[in-house]
Amino acid sequence: MASKKFVYFFGGGKAEGKGGMKELLGGKGAGLAEMTNIGLPVPAGFTITTEVCALYYKNNNKFPSGLDKEVAKNLARLEKLVGKKLGDYNDPLLISVRSGAARSMPGMMETILNLGLNDKSVEGLARKTNNRRFALDAYRRFIVMYGAIAMGIHRDEFEHEFEGIKNMRTRQRLNITNLVPEGSNRGKVLDTDVNEQELEELIPLLKAVYKKHTKKDFPQDPTEQLWGAINAVFGSWMAEKAVTYRRVEKISGLLGTAVNIVQMVFGNRGETSGTGVCFTRDPNTGENIFYGDLLMNAQGEDVVAGIRTPIHLSDLNRMMPNIYKQLCDVRKKLEKHYRDMQDIEFTVEEGKLYILQCRSGKRSPTAAFCMAVDMVKEKLITKKEALLRITDKEIEGLFYPVIDPKITRDELNKHHFAAGIAAVPGAACGKVVFNAKDAEEWAGRGEKVILVRKETSPEDVGGMHAAQGILTATGGKTSHAAVVARGWGKCCIVGCEELVIDYIHKTVVVGNKVLREGSEITINGSAGEVFQGSMNLIKPELPDAYYTLMRWADEVRKLNVRTNVDTPYDAENAIRLGAEGIGLCRTEHMFFDTDERRLAIQEMIVADDLETRKTALAKLLPFQREDFKGIFKAMNGKPVTIRLIDPPLHEFVPHTEGEQRHLAEKIAVPYEQVRRRVERLKEANPMLGHRGCRLCITYPEILEMQVRAIIEAACECVKEGVKVHPEIMHPLIIDGKELKILEIKTCEIAEKVIKEQGVKLKYLVGTMIEVPRAALLADKIADVAEFFSFGTNDLTQMTLGMSRDDAGRFLPDYVDEKKTGILKSDPFQSLDQDGVGMLIKIAIEKGRKTRKDLKIGICGEHGGDPATVEFCHRNGFNYVSCSPFRVPIARLAAAHAVLKSSR
Amino acid sequence: MASKKFVYFFGGGKAEGKGGMKELLGGKGAGLAEMTNIGLPVPAGFTITTEVCALYYKNNNKFPSGLDKEVAKNLARLEKLVGKKLGDYNDPLLISVRSGAARSMPGMMETILNLGLNDKSVEGLARKTNNRRFALDAYRRFIVMYGAIAMGIHRDEFEHEFEGIKNMRTRQRLNITNLVPEGSNRGKVLDTDVNEQELEELIPLLKAVYKKHTKKDFPQDPTEQLWGAINAVFGSWMAEKAVTYRRVEKISGLLGTAVNIVQMVFGNRGETSGTGVCFTRDPNTGENIFYGDLLMNAQGEDVVAGIRTPIHLSDLNRMMPNIYKQLCDVRKKLEKHYRDMQDIEFTVEEGKLYILQCRSGKRSPTAAFCMAVDMVKEKLITKKEALLRITDKEIEGLFYPVIDPKITRDELNKHHFAAGIAAVPGAACGKVVFNAKDAEEWAGRGEKVILVRKETSPEDVGGMHAAQGILTATGGKTSHAAVVARGWGKCCIVGCEELVIDYIHKTVVVGNKVLREGSEITINGSAGEVFQGSMNLIKPELPDAYYTLMRWADEVRKLNVRTNVDTPYDAENAIRLGAEGIGLCRTEHMFFDTDERRLAIQEMIVADDLETRKTALAKLLPFQREDFKGIFKAMNGKPVTIRLIDPPLHEFVPHTEGEQRHLAEKIAVPYEQVRRRVERLKEANPMLGHRGCRLCITYPEILEMQVRAIIEAACECVKEGVKVHPEIMHPLIIDGKELKILEIKTCEIAEKVIKEQGVKLKYLVGTMIEVPRAALLADKIADVAEFFSFGTNDLTQMTLGMSRDDAGRFLPDYVDEKKTGILKSDPFQSLDQDGVGMLIKIAIEKGRKTRKDLKIGICGEHGGDPATVEFCHRNGFNYVSCSPFRVPIARLAAAHAVLKSSR
Repeated sequence: MASKKFVYFFGGGKAEGKGGMKELLGGKGAGLAEMTNIGLPVPAGFTITTEVCALYYKNNNKFPSGLDKEVAKNLARLEKLVGKKLGDYNDPLLISVRSGAARSMPGMMETILNLGLNDKSVEGLARKTNNRRFALDAYRRFIVMYGAIAMGIHRDEFEHEFEGIKNMRTRQRLNITNLVPEGSNRGKVLDTDVNEQELEELIPLLKAVYKKHTKKDFPQDPTEQLWGAINAVFGSWMAEKAVTYRRVEKISGLLGTAVNIVQMVFGNRGETSGTGVCFTRDPNTGENIFYGDLLMNAQGEDVVAGIRTPIHLSDLNRMMPNIYKQLCDVRKKLEKHYRDMQDIEFTVEEGKLYILQCRSGKRSPTAAFCMAVDMVKEKLITKKEALLRITDKEIEGLFYPVIDPKITRDELNKHHFAAGIAAVPGAACGKVVFNAKDAEEWAGRGEKVILVRKETSPEDVGGMHAAQGILTATGGKTSHAAVVARGWGKCCIVGCEELVIDYIHKTVVVGNKVLREGSEITINGSAGEVFQGSMNLIKPELPDAYYTLMRWADEVRKLNVRTNVDTPYDAENAIRLGAEGIGLCRTEHMFFDTDERRLAIQEMIVADDLETRKTALAKLLPFQREDFKGIFKAMNGKPVTIRLIDPPLHEFVPHTEGEQRHLAEKIAVPYEQVRRRVERLKEANPMLGHRGCRLCITYPEILEMQVRAIIEAACECVKEGVKVHPEIMHPLIIDGKELKILEIKTCEIAEKVIKEQGVKLKYLVGTMIEVPRAALLADKIADVAEFFSFGTNDLTQMTLGMSRDDAGRFLPDYVDEKKTGILKSDPFQSLDQDGVGMLIKIAIEKGRKTRKDLKIGICGEHGGDPATVEFCHRNGFNYVSCSPFRVPIARLAAAHAVLKSSR
Repeated sequence: MASKKFVYFFGGGKAEGKGGMKELLGGKGAGLAEMTNIGLPVPAGFTITTEVCALYYKNNNKFPSGLDKEVAKNLARLEKLVGKKLGDYNDPLLISVRSGAARSMPGMMETILNLGLNDKSVEGLARKTNNRRFALDAYRRFIVMYGAIAMGIHRDEFEHEFEGIKNMRTRQRLNITNLVPEGSNRGKVLDTDVNEQELEELIPLLKAVYKKHTKKDFPQDPTEQLWGAINAVFGSWMAEKAVTYRRVEKISGLLGTAVNIVQMVFGNRGETSGTGVCFTRDPNTGENIFYGDLLMNAQGEDVVAGIRTPIHLSDLNRMMPNIYKQLCDVRKKLEKHYRDMQDIEFTVEEGKLYILQCRSGKRSPTAAFCMAVDMVKEKLITKKEALLRITDKEIEGLFYPVIDPKITRDELNKHHFAAGIAAVPGAACGKVVFNAKDAEEWAGRGEKVILVRKETSPEDVGGMHAAQGILTATGGKTSHAAVVARGWGKCCIVGCEELVIDYIHKTVVVGNKVLREGSEITINGSAGEVFQGSMNLIKPELPDAYYTLMRWADEVRKLNVRTNVDTPYDAENAIRLGAEGIGLCRTEHMFFDTDERRLAIQEMIVADDLETRKTALAKLLPFQREDFKGIFKAMNGKPVTIRLIDPPLHEFVPHTEGEQRHLAEKIAVPYEQVRRRVERLKEANPMLGHRGCRLCITYPEILEMQVRAIIEAACECVKEGVKVHPEIMHPLIIDGKELKILEIKTCEIAEKVIKEQGVKLKYLVGTMIEVPRAALLADKIADVAEFFSFGTNDLTQMTLGMSRDDAGRFLPDYVDEKKTGILKSDPFQSLDQDGVGMLIKIAIEKGRKTRKDLKIGICGEHGGDPATVEFCHRNGFNYVSCSPFRVPIARLAAAHAVLKSSR
């Protein structure tokens, strides 16, 4: 131990450490060393290792012996290199002291800047910079930071004194004697307005605060200051908030924090000084141009305050060509070194360039694609790296309209109406309507509308489709509204619980704000925010790079990507987005397309006897057949998995007396019969009730109609020369015997129709695995099923015993790391791999034991979640299926899964 | 093959076959052989083997060569033995022909009696018996049976002719000329009333029917008759109804059916003839006395017609002492041989005794116990056999009151009101009331009431307890009403869907029958039948033999048997029934015991902030503590598992505006707040909603109150010298981390209370396993849990995706073997061992891997189901827990499980 090196120096073009030494030097220390080593003009300094921190704690909060000497030696080296001395009365060296662990821990410890100032050296700095206000302001900041961070004095104590000075000035300026009312900003003095004299008055007050709390004078000895700061950094490692943070973030195995001691540089030392931020490429377009701006004679905080307008890099080229050239050099070096677009913070101090920090730059979705593809062309990165750099959020960002980014946050805040759960991204604006019928009518006459509902049901699908966007007061990300809207990529906010909706008076109220039918609103489905009024929206455009990159993804991935759609229109859209088949075609939505269909299904449900049911079903048959034909044609030979009727019948019938009377009249049945039937359909837990294949067990005539419609449609396509691969899927299966009964019936009808039509047709019969029992008995079920499609929505609900419609009340507590962290993420968005995943693995193993070539897919909402796609890849799925707009995300995620597993 | 023996003879005290040859001779044939061999006077005959049937089908519906000779040889042997010849014109031998497979297949084929009669021999029989009416009647029956069974002519065709004859007589008798109105029984002539002359007229008409259908005359050759009958028996083996029956009953591997050809004997051949049934012991009391009666000069059908009163066996002893002595001999032989009480059918033909059939006799529950214990004492059977002979139904029968069996079925039918699902056995009568409050009030003033509800909820528990019985229009065997009533052994009928209940007018209507508040009704929970009026009930009494047998069961069983109770009263009752601990104490029922408690819990739920919640909970604490103390004292050292709050809060609050306003006033909160809160508590699928431990994750203060109440109660008991073993159980756990959070909180409070109280106390913390995810992650959960208790009600609901409250609409189809037979039995009554059972096995294996000594129990409704108890025994459970009245059933089932596994 004795021979361990405690301190690593960097500066003058060389560093003792390097980028790979994060564990020892922390992320920041390693970064500074790396930048120094590649020849960047980094301010000099040194790093005390994380091992010292470990020893400090091991040693009962004492510094290891020898540390003092090493620090002194490195400080001397720094002073020599910079040519200034810490605490020097004429031209003092100022340093910053910061913590830095191997993993970023935001908020663990703040930075102490300007260390080295005292009552004497501050005057030297004033003289040297010829700017006493600057020097006094630097001293003010140091006292507050040191007092707060190293000594634990509450910042408010210092702030109180500063406010006193500022308020005095404000009163003088406004020429009034009474106090400015609290909270008023009228004519208020900013920090930067405080003048030299006022700072001079302030400093003794701050020192008095320091003394009051520490019972000691503010330390004038820079060495004492330094050790106080180092001690504070180590102390912060075990502070409660840091310990909690590590527990919550599951960070363990770290030695401790390092301490970085770095020379201060200032951009506000005159006309040859300045500070700025630049990007090695344009972060908005991705274009390979140098992009950035700076403020001359200014510090970082001046940029934040927005007092002056920054100048562009091109201006810098004009004003200080030498600095500009240096910066261009840095740009080149960094891109070559880090092989990615970098975001660079720099300062020019009296004509000398310093690079303070660099990191991978944030970029727009378009830029992300363009850069990735460009960099491959430039041979900077491989295709594999390019693919791995694109995230699902970036793909999403390419597809959805957004509120014009030129509209400021302030402007947005003025129009804020409510906030809910961001269910489907994108933005939309239109007039408020409160029911599906109105939505269809208004849209029919060319109005843009937003459908606002407490919740939606299959009956509303027409109106939902007609609307620009959907806003509901209840429900979660997988509620009916969210699932349906997602299928169309239609902006949707759900669970907006503050909305008080009154269907009778057609108003929606939040607090004292009221919207009526026809009021204009804008909704932002990416952030879950609702605004009053109509805002300018920017439509998305796909860059060429998108197509290039997706082609690369397709070359790599092993999983097929299918889509969940219910109409020919959506099917065509999904194909454009890269879908290779339909993994889930829900047949029940088709029942609501027109009044005629709706009446037929309702007549079927209300019927008291088999004959009436069959008559009503016969009316539906031609509609379903036409729908299926359209879908088969759109998919043109790609496989189409069609799920037979799934929801409980209660979802299909009207629930108000008026609607029921209307229905009774239309189908010529006594109102009482309709009412009674609807009443009897009510269930305590409809999700676990009479639905799915159970409907076809009770009413085989429904299966007969649906299978006939599918096979007739397929045969007609075959006759027209269209290839078809129908896959008939039975939902909610719990037993092999159950599926066998349904499969026999399905094949009977299918074979009969095929014979009638006199064509050749192959079709598959399979099942959703969405009930735990089906997963457990998958071997028996695979005896019958030719394919499994995991219905992970329901499987999650049942495996976790959690209704997704009701989970809103407690699931946030379960997912919130700070509250309980019981679940890693919302199990309705990203598959619960521990629980549901285990069941899926059991089902696959058992299923393939019985049937080696069992085709396996997933068609729940999870099919478009990247982590779930990776799970599917690892576990031998044949395909994932998701809503059309998530198809590209799934394609990329499937490629990522391959690339990650080959690492 | 050629050397195979086709026919086995029996008669004259010897048989070629024996009892063990069921596969070859069928059950009936083997039984006749066995009885013959042990020396009983069985009518002689012979059996054509099942192998012949197999050959018949193998050989394209042809008899194997050589069969005809063997049949002829055996027929000759029979004729010789009996001394009569088939078709003899003077004294013909009559025979019966019946099928008989190795497994009983009721209804597969009916019997052909009196074979051998023809136009000539019938006159011989008439002369010989000196009773022409008897002979003609025998012939009539033979023609009909042969025509219907051997030739497939519909019985109605024959019946029509017979009716014609009878109607003529009826008209004559009533002296009217017009036709008797259909369906009228006024003065109708019975079969037995038809006289000789009329029979003489009838026979040609029957033969005409025969000819019309077969285009042949009715066969006069007895040999042709015989082969026609044999052919019919073999043909019936492959008849659709037989094939279906075997498929449904999963009967396979049988060769075919045997054919039994047996000498006919008649009990109506004069004063020295008769027919009767006797039991080797009294089937009502179990007493070891010879019990039975007979009709002299009568046939079996005369007994059924009930024209004359039978005489007792003692009279037989007086009248025909020789026959009586023979019969006593038979009794002794049979009991010794079959080692069980036998039910014997016998006929005396002209002073000669014939035993036609014997089988294990049906017996009353009391008799079952007494006989089993007596037979052990008599060394006739072992204790093991005695135990295995007792069924759960027999135990049940000992405990519940029944409607006086003297009340005839006709009488019952007259009072029939409705039929529902038999949820809890026993019978009860009382006045109809329609709500829990009335039930309590009426019962409070000494009235017996039956609570009639659409459904019940926890709020109704007080009224349910006060009622004699409960009747609901909805719900299944595990609905709230059923579960609660079962806990008390209180008669209950649920799912009585035909009831139309009107709470406002306080009426319940079925068709045109109306009951009002205060109307007397009687309900039979064993059969699910509701009667108008008050009927006499017989209270059960336990025989000494019950205690003896249960003691033997306790000596044998390995599983502990606990009980599910919530009150000290029920706990005491359960101990009397043999409970060895409490496996499930539901704490929420306690919240409804009084208005004060109800208000406190409702105040807690309605509260907007933590403080109000805590204040309300503080009011509940002393009540819960006293309840727990009472239970601990009642259990006196036996373990007590207490489950923390489980149901969704919605179940605790009032739902009508009136009640909500009342509550608002009582707890001084605006009505709107109450209404809104109740509204927000509504859930789409409450079973999968905010309930179970999720409530304590959101509101830890509930856990704090409950744990404090439990531990304070336990400590106070310890101070009073009462031993306590509390086991605190967290419901609806889905994750180890979740349980850990709750366990830490539980132990914190427990330890604090123990310290405050200054006593020593051990307690366990464990969990229910009732969500599939918990079973899958049982290894992680067992890291924390000291015990698992499988909550198989919810586990079944989630594993099968079946809400027990809603399953009534489709589950019958799933369980009905004739419809689908997807499930072997109702999974809410008997554990679904394939699906849920697999999950339980996974959980046990994983749980015990982590914690070897993990205590494992079951506390769902299944804990009292014998098949489930056997499953628990096989899979290493420590205990089962069930409602008190099922404790004896579980004790016996646990013993059975040991005895069966040691076979």
